[in-house]
Amino acid sequence: MRTDYVHGYSEREEARLLDQASTLSDLLHAGTRYPDGARVLEAGCGVGAQTVTLARNSPGARFTCVDVSARSLEAARARAQAAGLGNVAFEQADLFDLPFREESFDHVFLCFVLEHLARPREALAALRSRLRPGGTLTVIEGDHGSTFFHPEDADARRAVECLVTLQDRAGGDALIGRRLQPLLAGAGLREVVVSPRMVYADATRPEWVQGFTLDTFTAMVEGVGDRAVAEGLVDAAAFARGVAGLRRAAGPEGVFCYTFFKAVAVR
Amino acid sequence: MRTDYVHGYSEREEARLLDQASTLSDLLHAGTRYPDGARVLEAGCGVGAQTVTLARNSPGARFTCVDVSARSLEAARARAQAAGLGNVAFEQADLFDLPFREESFDHVFLCFVLEHLARPREALAALRSRLRPGGTLTVIEGDHGSTFFHPEDADARRAVECLVTLQDRAGGDALIGRRLQPLLAGAGLREVVVSPRMVYADATRPEWVQGFTLDTFTAMVEGVGDRAVAEGLVDAAAFARGVAGLRRAAGPEGVFCYTFFKAVAVR
Repeated sequence: MRTDYVHGYSEREEARLLDQASTLSDLLHAGTRYPDGARVLEAGCGVGAQTVTLARNSPGARFTCVDVSARSLEAARARAQAAGLGNVAFEQADLFDLPFREESFDHVFLCFVLEHLARPREALAALRSRLRPGGTLTVIEGDHGSTFFHPEDADARRAVECLVTLQDRAGGDALIGRRLQPLLAGAGLREVVVSPRMVYADATRPEWVQGFTLDTFTAMVEGVGDRAVAEGLVDAAAFARGVAGLRRAAGPEGVFCYTFFKAVAVR
Repeated sequence: MRTDYVHGYSEREEARLLDQASTLSDLLHAGTRYPDGARVLEAGCGVGAQTVTLARNSPGARFTCVDVSARSLEAARARAQAAGLGNVAFEQADLFDLPFREESFDHVFLCFVLEHLARPREALAALRSRLRPGGTLTVIEGDHGSTFFHPEDADARRAVECLVTLQDRAGGDALIGRRLQPLLAGAGLREVVVSPRMVYADATRPEWVQGFTLDTFTAMVEGVGDRAVAEGLVDAAAFARGVAGLRRAAGPEGVFCYTFFKAVAVR
């Protein structure tokens, strides 16, 4: 169910997703720990960008990690093996046709998955049914519309909007982070608690400037440039100015802000 | 130095500023405590919206609260008196012509002041000079460009942009929050640490929906409607649709996000 339109499966993209996780993992995974013996489903594990952190943080839990892409799973398996994880099993599966009985998991975790789906609520309902009553569902998503920066730059804003438009055209929603609460509640989950997690990067935080503003966000925007131009969303010169604007936000006088949303809910 | 263009001094505006403080005070004042005997300057105290929280949180510190507006100071004095504050003195003063010797304060605090100034860096430099070496300066500002909400609504976004444009025309900067770090560093302050403080309001947080989304933010936007229309920024119908859009973000399926920035630096 994952589109490879905006987040492709090229090696460069893969590196970006993994970089993102290693830079952001403390921020995103804070608070997610599962007890020994817990059966946890990671839905849409992709190349395993979150899997290693997830499994290391809960060494006594047993993870089943599924993805629709065999190629992504292969990368995820290699990564889990390299990390020496002994509590993770991988399985190829479609979120809308899961090969698991109802109530077979204590917890479900998914990160950067719903943004790609045309029917996120239905996906959540399908995942909910695999949870035992009282089990939790944890969702992490970004929201490209949460992006703002200094210095202000209209071209940079337009370049970010290209990302949103492309994801929309591919059937996804790059603004999904902000609406996790109504989405989860609408899928029948209860006690939804959302915690926004803002990345704030200024010159006093060089590791975030490099790791997030440049290597994660700006790289992601750059990665859709050709497509944005090909689809007539922007001309190449304006897009290049936009990327340059994002780089200025990573400069000595620059500031960059982006917000991820993490929701935890109960079946 | 304060313009009363966007934040007017009408009773309604005053109520809004005070409401804002009582809803937001935990969020904004968290971490601000001054030791017994500390001499603290609150610059631009306005109607005293922050003064009561500030002085209560540090009962042993001695506050000198200045504002350029005699009328605001009168309201601030009444409020301090009603709250029984014994550690606060008020004085009418211009930030650019402060009646205090150099190095006469241990700490300086200012909240929602720089956004109104055409020369915020010069104001900071003036305040810095009144600090003893090693003393701290704390600044809190909003950033209207940090606003985003669900459901997405182009009219609501345009209404928020009217606020930004009006503040710009009045010589201020409604996007100042994001640039506190370069601003303070540029004014000669050191060890600048910025902490973004996001207001996140969904249906599970009714006190924030009412207290912030509706009574603070939407009320503030509504308050500039006539001016925005008079200045030709928007037509009345589109502005009304924008306000209705903000109200939908306060509805049962709505979500509203806004980020304040708090910076602490050292002379």
